[in-house]
Amino acid sequence: MEFFLEHTDPSCAARKGTLRTRHGTIETPAFMPVGSLGTVKGIEPSDLQAMEFSAILCNAYHLYLRPGHEVVAEMGGLHAFTAWPGAILTDSGGFQIFSLAKLCRVTDAGVTFQSHLDGSSHEFSPERAIAVQAALGADIIMALDECVALPSPRDRVEQALRRTGEWARRCLAARRRTDQALFGIVQGGHDAELRVRAARDLVALAFDGYAVGGLSVGEAKPVMHAMLEVTVPELPSDRPRYLMGVGMPEDLVEGVARGIDLFDCVVPTRHGRTGWLFTSFGRVLIKQAHYARDERPIDPGCTCPVCHRYSRAYLHHLFVAKEMLGPRLNTLHNLYYFADLMRRIRLSIEQGSFSNFRRDFYSQRLAATQGSEAMPVA
Amino acid sequence: MEFFLEHTDPSCAARKGTLRTRHGTIETPAFMPVGSLGTVKGIEPSDLQAMEFSAILCNAYHLYLRPGHEVVAEMGGLHAFTAWPGAILTDSGGFQIFSLAKLCRVTDAGVTFQSHLDGSSHEFSPERAIAVQAALGADIIMALDECVALPSPRDRVEQALRRTGEWARRCLAARRRTDQALFGIVQGGHDAELRVRAARDLVALAFDGYAVGGLSVGEAKPVMHAMLEVTVPELPSDRPRYLMGVGMPEDLVEGVARGIDLFDCVVPTRHGRTGWLFTSFGRVLIKQAHYARDERPIDPGCTCPVCHRYSRAYLHHLFVAKEMLGPRLNTLHNLYYFADLMRRIRLSIEQGSFSNFRRDFYSQRLAATQGSEAMPVA
Repeated sequence: MEFFLEHTDPSCAARKGTLRTRHGTIETPAFMPVGSLGTVKGIEPSDLQAMEFSAILCNAYHLYLRPGHEVVAEMGGLHAFTAWPGAILTDSGGFQIFSLAKLCRVTDAGVTFQSHLDGSSHEFSPERAIAVQAALGADIIMALDECVALPSPRDRVEQALRRTGEWARRCLAARRRTDQALFGIVQGGHDAELRVRAARDLVALAFDGYAVGGLSVGEAKPVMHAMLEVTVPELPSDRPRYLMGVGMPEDLVEGVARGIDLFDCVVPTRHGRTGWLFTSFGRVLIKQAHYARDERPIDPGCTCPVCHRYSRAYLHHLFVAKEMLGPRLNTLHNLYYFADLMRRIRLSIEQGSFSNFRRDFYSQRLAATQGSEAMPVA
Repeated sequence: MEFFLEHTDPSCAARKGTLRTRHGTIETPAFMPVGSLGTVKGIEPSDLQAMEFSAILCNAYHLYLRPGHEVVAEMGGLHAFTAWPGAILTDSGGFQIFSLAKLCRVTDAGVTFQSHLDGSSHEFSPERAIAVQAALGADIIMALDECVALPSPRDRVEQALRRTGEWARRCLAARRRTDQALFGIVQGGHDAELRVRAARDLVALAFDGYAVGGLSVGEAKPVMHAMLEVTVPELPSDRPRYLMGVGMPEDLVEGVARGIDLFDCVVPTRHGRTGWLFTSFGRVLIKQAHYARDERPIDPGCTCPVCHRYSRAYLHHLFVAKEMLGPRLNTLHNLYYFADLMRRIRLSIEQGSFSNFRRDFYSQRLAATQGSEAMPVA
């Protein structure tokens, strides 16, 4: 993996780069759709390619349970198995183990947990997380970290941080495949001092890239922004920076402004399935009755295939009738919105006009809430 | 609507024709995928076009209830509402009223029923069925018929037949739109004499086309074949003949052999959603555990986009994980199988080799059940 930094914004930490992987080039800042089980729900790889996504995220925890990392390896790895030719990043499983699995018990050795599916017992360790991800065969893999519920007492956060640091070293030592980039994850809760300490500790280990984890878990936006503002400057500028599990469109804009290169989030897909549609003027909740006879597309200014072909009335009908085409079309629109947002962000950085882009992004939404299209902005 | 008969098979009643509609040409014999609520479940119009389907069926009953035929009319009719540019046939609602709705009460005037969705009361009459279908705006619409549960006593079948005949006359009289073709429906249960009587009665009314209804409702295959063999010869050769709600691949082959031009059925879509996949060698039930590590496509001889890209192992995984991409890909494969089957049937009739095609169709399946791919043939 190679990372080239091409442009930096004169007014903030926003930057435009290029990340070369074995499976194509990722223009950064980039958003990665989530395909937890090796499929972005309802969407085909060809759809993602048409929207010019270059990377997706898959979850090691989910794939370890179903169909099993060994099955994926036998089938030629995730790229062959899923027919996705672009780049893949797998998370280590840490976040899902701590948020989804039952009866987690964590020691310095690792974590034992019960599957959320059938209650079966499993053990994960840094070594195991790397082995599972080696079998899955993603282009970028993640170190195993301990994720604590936030807010937690400072000593609990510190303990997890110490363990995450030790596990980071063991992950690096356990790596066998030289064709997978390995990223470390900066934790530290909402404590600026701990974030800085964690970042410095990991930077000394020379990971291929750095992730910021444990944010967008319920804290106020200014807290997340503050954590980024103390963490990112500690990270080497020649390595990609990845803000995990974030987020809403405004979080992407603010993350980019603070020097983030990569994002992933279930928001465009999960919100799409519930009929929450992203537009330049805020959200459209397609289940609302007033869309039943609305011939307009979701966003008259959008150039996606869904807005090109289908009316709000039809999408409302599909939603009300629980037709499976609805979640697919809603997801396609939302993913297109995210792809286009990142495309426009990259262009503005290249042109040195990111601060204008950021201002326009907010003013467009504000104008909408004050105009005839008035609806609460997400 | 214009129908041109182009080829007839020398050895049986199979025929190749062309049906020109306001929304494109249907090469017959043709299979129409079912889009009950204005959407072929999980499939986009562009997918159907790529598979070269030229017509779909929508259900007046379902669309009358949701979103309402008046909403569809306001949105410009079914073609504009669904973004399907090809031909559309709507059934009258009769079959769904008698099979799906609650508390049906039928008199000569019409039928009152309760919605299967919310129990609300509704009245349908021949005039109402035509008005609803006029609002929906399909290219081909159907007369309202009374569908009796089969087997039923002969006098019950006769009574329904008399009523269906009277309703047919009222449907013709109620038609206002000259741009919609109107088909009559031959009923008569499993009684050859009643079928012939019904056919002669309707043929005298000069419908634009003729449907055979009330078959494939549980009777043995030879019974269905016998009913076709007595009914079809009564129908005018210059009008399209449509076998409603049929069927399995072998039913299409046998229907064509008996002179049928049009088919519709939920089989490729509904079976697809349950993981029943059609192939040249019989069925593949993708949930079966032995597919978990099977790198082959569904049908190695199939040229569809699903077989081109995805393995049985991946489709098995999507099924087991209840991922929504599974039903979509399974449906795409099955629809492609049906489209390709009809394409090959038409070609064989044009080449005068339909009897060879029919023989090969069965021998290919038989060979498979005796070979290494052994599995029960559907």
